[in-house]
Amino acid sequence: MRGVFIALEGGDGAGKSTQLRLLREHLERVAPGREVLLTREPGGTPLGVEIRQLLLHGGEVAPRAEALLFAADRAHHVATLVRPALERGAVVLTDRFMDSSIAYQGAGRSLAADEVDRLSRWATEGLLPDLTVLLDLDPALAAGRRGGEADRMESESTVFHTRVREHFLALAAREPERYLVVDAARPAAEIAAEVSRAVDALLAGAVDGVEGSGR
Amino acid sequence: MRGVFIALEGGDGAGKSTQLRLLREHLERVAPGREVLLTREPGGTPLGVEIRQLLLHGGEVAPRAEALLFAADRAHHVATLVRPALERGAVVLTDRFMDSSIAYQGAGRSLAADEVDRLSRWATEGLLPDLTVLLDLDPALAAGRRGGEADRMESESTVFHTRVREHFLALAAREPERYLVVDAARPAAEIAAEVSRAVDALLAGAVDGVEGSGR
Repeated sequence: MRGVFIALEGGDGAGKSTQLRLLREHLERVAPGREVLLTREPGGTPLGVEIRQLLLHGGEVAPRAEALLFAADRAHHVATLVRPALERGAVVLTDRFMDSSIAYQGAGRSLAADEVDRLSRWATEGLLPDLTVLLDLDPALAAGRRGGEADRMESESTVFHTRVREHFLALAAREPERYLVVDAARPAAEIAAEVSRAVDALLAGAVDGVEGSGR
Repeated sequence: MRGVFIALEGGDGAGKSTQLRLLREHLERVAPGREVLLTREPGGTPLGVEIRQLLLHGGEVAPRAEALLFAADRAHHVATLVRPALERGAVVLTDRFMDSSIAYQGAGRSLAADEVDRLSRWATEGLLPDLTVLLDLDPALAAGRRGGEADRMESESTVFHTRVREHFLALAAREPERYLVVDAARPAAEIAAEVSRAVDALLAGAVDGVEGSGR
């Protein structure tokens, strides 16, 4: 049985953690005994945890250095954790992957999105998720969910998060067969049901050897 | 007055530290008052020191992650230290630069040298040294200088360091006008005199605005 690689993407407050938990519970029900690996970027490996510390607490980081540190985290994550799990036949669920780098760094405008994309593909030796679930949410709603007041967000921040959202949507539009775009303003249980249906179809295809990216 | 960027390259034990010190002393004599910045890769910045720690003590690092960490160190070093110094008109002397990444990672054979080259050029936004001094030394002699016995080096290690040396020489042969290849088996004072002559010529050219890479 070959492994299946699923990424959850979206802005902060879109509900990725909740959906990852619900998806894992769903997989434990429908595929008991199947290995499910829940992981994250950045910081999915011991080295990644240290890189994440540098990114969050290392003071000012030059834009290209930042992109290269995220790519280093991803390269190590894929080589030492994700690929070996896929080779064992696991279902790998990651909280963020390359789309987050492209969306956030592209939205910051100091780097071109296609350069960040190319860097990420080099880091992963071309590994792409079989399915990317994009939890799409208006940044103002997301800010409310995070516990802040939407109207207290600085306008600059709203503009930035709106650009991030647009980048995510553009990536999904480029390869619709590999994406599930979900309206994340709906109740969590409804979203979980929609995600579960897509994952069930993917797992059925993977068993038959019909679907999935070439690895 | 525009800045001048000089890299010293070569294997461990080739005498880079000694030559950097002698070159700085020479510059203080011939160009008193001129800012001279002595720096290094990896670890020329506070962030770089932390990245260096990860590379040296972070356990096993996937080959692409390692290349990306070196590139992140370089990107931050160039953006926050080297370029600002060059803009102030300083002479910047670095102990290792991109050639070391290409030579060592290319010699390791898990990555293609041209991919490491491309990564490094992206990291630095194309900044190249005005002059790269390659201290060329037979790996067996270098091992003796480092205090070990040449015949106690494992044969695998000798093969590796010989490949590193060949990569360095190939880089120098590709752009001879930007390189000074020095026989590092000679006495330090002789080498220093040869390096000083090349740097004096470079500084004279920089004052006239005739030589140097376009920045």
